[in-house]
Amino acid sequence: MDRRSILKGAGVAGVLAAGVAPAVHAQPAVRWRLASSFPKSLPTLFGSAEILAQQVKAMSGGKFEISVHPAGELMPAFGVVDALQNDTIDMAQSAAYYFTGKDSIFAFSCAIPFGLTTLQMNAWKDHGNGRKLLNAFFEKYNFFTASAGNTTTQMGGWYRKEIKSPEDFKGLKMRLGGGLFGETMAKLGVVAQNIPAGDIYTALEKGTLDAVEFVGPFDDEKLGLNKVAPFYYYPGWWEASADIEFFTNIKKFNELSPENKAILMAAMRVAAAETTSAYMTFNPIALKKLVAEKTQLKMFPKSIMDAGFKAAMEVFAEHESKSAEFKKIHQDFRAFQKDQILWNRVSEFPYNQYINSIKL
Amino acid sequence: MDRRSILKGAGVAGVLAAGVAPAVHAQPAVRWRLASSFPKSLPTLFGSAEILAQQVKAMSGGKFEISVHPAGELMPAFGVVDALQNDTIDMAQSAAYYFTGKDSIFAFSCAIPFGLTTLQMNAWKDHGNGRKLLNAFFEKYNFFTASAGNTTTQMGGWYRKEIKSPEDFKGLKMRLGGGLFGETMAKLGVVAQNIPAGDIYTALEKGTLDAVEFVGPFDDEKLGLNKVAPFYYYPGWWEASADIEFFTNIKKFNELSPENKAILMAAMRVAAAETTSAYMTFNPIALKKLVAEKTQLKMFPKSIMDAGFKAAMEVFAEHESKSAEFKKIHQDFRAFQKDQILWNRVSEFPYNQYINSIKL
Repeated sequence: MDRRSILKGAGVAGVLAAGVAPAVHAQPAVRWRLASSFPKSLPTLFGSAEILAQQVKAMSGGKFEISVHPAGELMPAFGVVDALQNDTIDMAQSAAYYFTGKDSIFAFSCAIPFGLTTLQMNAWKDHGNGRKLLNAFFEKYNFFTASAGNTTTQMGGWYRKEIKSPEDFKGLKMRLGGGLFGETMAKLGVVAQNIPAGDIYTALEKGTLDAVEFVGPFDDEKLGLNKVAPFYYYPGWWEASADIEFFTNIKKFNELSPENKAILMAAMRVAAAETTSAYMTFNPIALKKLVAEKTQLKMFPKSIMDAGFKAAMEVFAEHESKSAEFKKIHQDFRAFQKDQILWNRVSEFPYNQYINSIKL
Repeated sequence: MDRRSILKGAGVAGVLAAGVAPAVHAQPAVRWRLASSFPKSLPTLFGSAEILAQQVKAMSGGKFEISVHPAGELMPAFGVVDALQNDTIDMAQSAAYYFTGKDSIFAFSCAIPFGLTTLQMNAWKDHGNGRKLLNAFFEKYNFFTASAGNTTTQMGGWYRKEIKSPEDFKGLKMRLGGGLFGETMAKLGVVAQNIPAGDIYTALEKGTLDAVEFVGPFDDEKLGLNKVAPFYYYPGWWEASADIEFFTNIKKFNELSPENKAILMAAMRVAAAETTSAYMTFNPIALKKLVAEKTQLKMFPKSIMDAGFKAAMEVFAEHESKSAEFKKIHQDFRAFQKDQILWNRVSEFPYNQYINSIKL
């Protein structure tokens, strides 16, 4: 316990001794603000920030509180990194790959094409070099990250027409996430369209868009995309998992007491675990509903996967040639992935191959 | 903040005001004891209990401490459930399926043959009915459980001879976990041998044992089993994942302040997440080492998987006919699993099928 927190503790106790306990709750010793890049209408994503706030308050007995703000309330969805840099906010919740315009390295913290699956991503960050390398990079932006939950493997998007070969991507007007995936799809001839979430449905209905990739069944079903595009492709090879994260202001974190530091870190773990489990639980339920409403599930043919892989590797090579730091992180990521593939081949994969093939 | 914790807070502050701060750490307000079923020599498993203790201490500022004891120190490895029932300990760390001798329902909280994989198991407990159903059952033993980390998909064991068909299981002297898996293997003709971990190596070397199943590469390699059995089979269809858990004494938990309750729950999340990531990270490293030392990796042929599945389903049917509670939990587990299989088929599985097949 450092001197500052001892003083704080004594201050709180003074109030208690005077018999005005309720004042403690009215005036938390530490009050933080978190800005999310997600709207309230995405309950798993924004819900993760709400879990964080509830946990921090409960563990600290109300002495540390975080007010959480959906996208647009304090600043635009993508303004959160700038706000951390200029100390306007204490925390953010976002997907790091939204910020590849600042630096492509951001993508590694969330998802890259042909990347790691959920447990692999956690492992790279927790016990591989992932967290260490990424937080050394994020330091220049005045934050460090920790998981807020993983969407698990995403779908490959909604299409008005079947995608039978790489040729079918040429000229396709598609709403898609940016960053390294956007660059990869551009190589395949996709014409990326920037359309706000609220306008996607209409654009797809009218044919302003030919295709949309968003997240997975649970989130996609909320947009009603199945009503205007019959084909739902898998797997989402650009997001084998997508780690949504909390971005914590380093300066503000360093001002916390040791107890509050530990409480914040643990609260993020709770939010991450519950959010990943939520995606695992609710995706199949939404998928069944979509299939009942006549959505046609289609697997990307191997020719598409091969073309996507080739294009993605070209994109990575280009970035590696421009940035030694990008290269270092990418090489570490792939080395870790190679070991994970070796392990997956003799563990979950052959197990799933059997259990997915029988009548349970 | 309840009255009790307010008084505690004031007491601590009084000590601080008197300038004898170190006494706070010397005398934690709450001191718990945890008994593990695992030895210190299994660093991922016992390490999870150590993370728990470190987290609780850090978050509470030393006001809540848990002393953690490896198997045998306070009581034998399998004495922990009795010790929770008679309030000898505040917590345990164990694998619930060790206690199927008390009731077969215990197995659902850890692993059953042809069960859920890691993320699926977390989801069943966090957002399905798993935790609710199991903790209602555990109440009669005076504890509730939460994950301490998952071993992830286990291997199918070490064999002195190749296992080419179900016939090869007949009369096979094998060291294996008990419970529903033991009953399943007995149906296949396996003669289960109860041999302490320390004697496994010698027994396998001498031929007292024909086969051994333990955990996965990281833990197995420590026993040196590769030196006395050449064949290492996969997948471990009886432990598609194995959830190691903390068992918390309900009476003692109810005596904690709201802050300490939240701190304990969050600390378990930290320990679980880091432990699962440790298995994911260290299993492939150990696997590469084993393969370099000439271990022959073999996949169980489909005839074995089919025979195992048939035997397992017979075991489940027998238990269902004897216990309505077993049936209720098993049916809920399988309904959840069916949805998970639907989801896996269009998400991680086809992704892994591709990424595992190419040269990265």
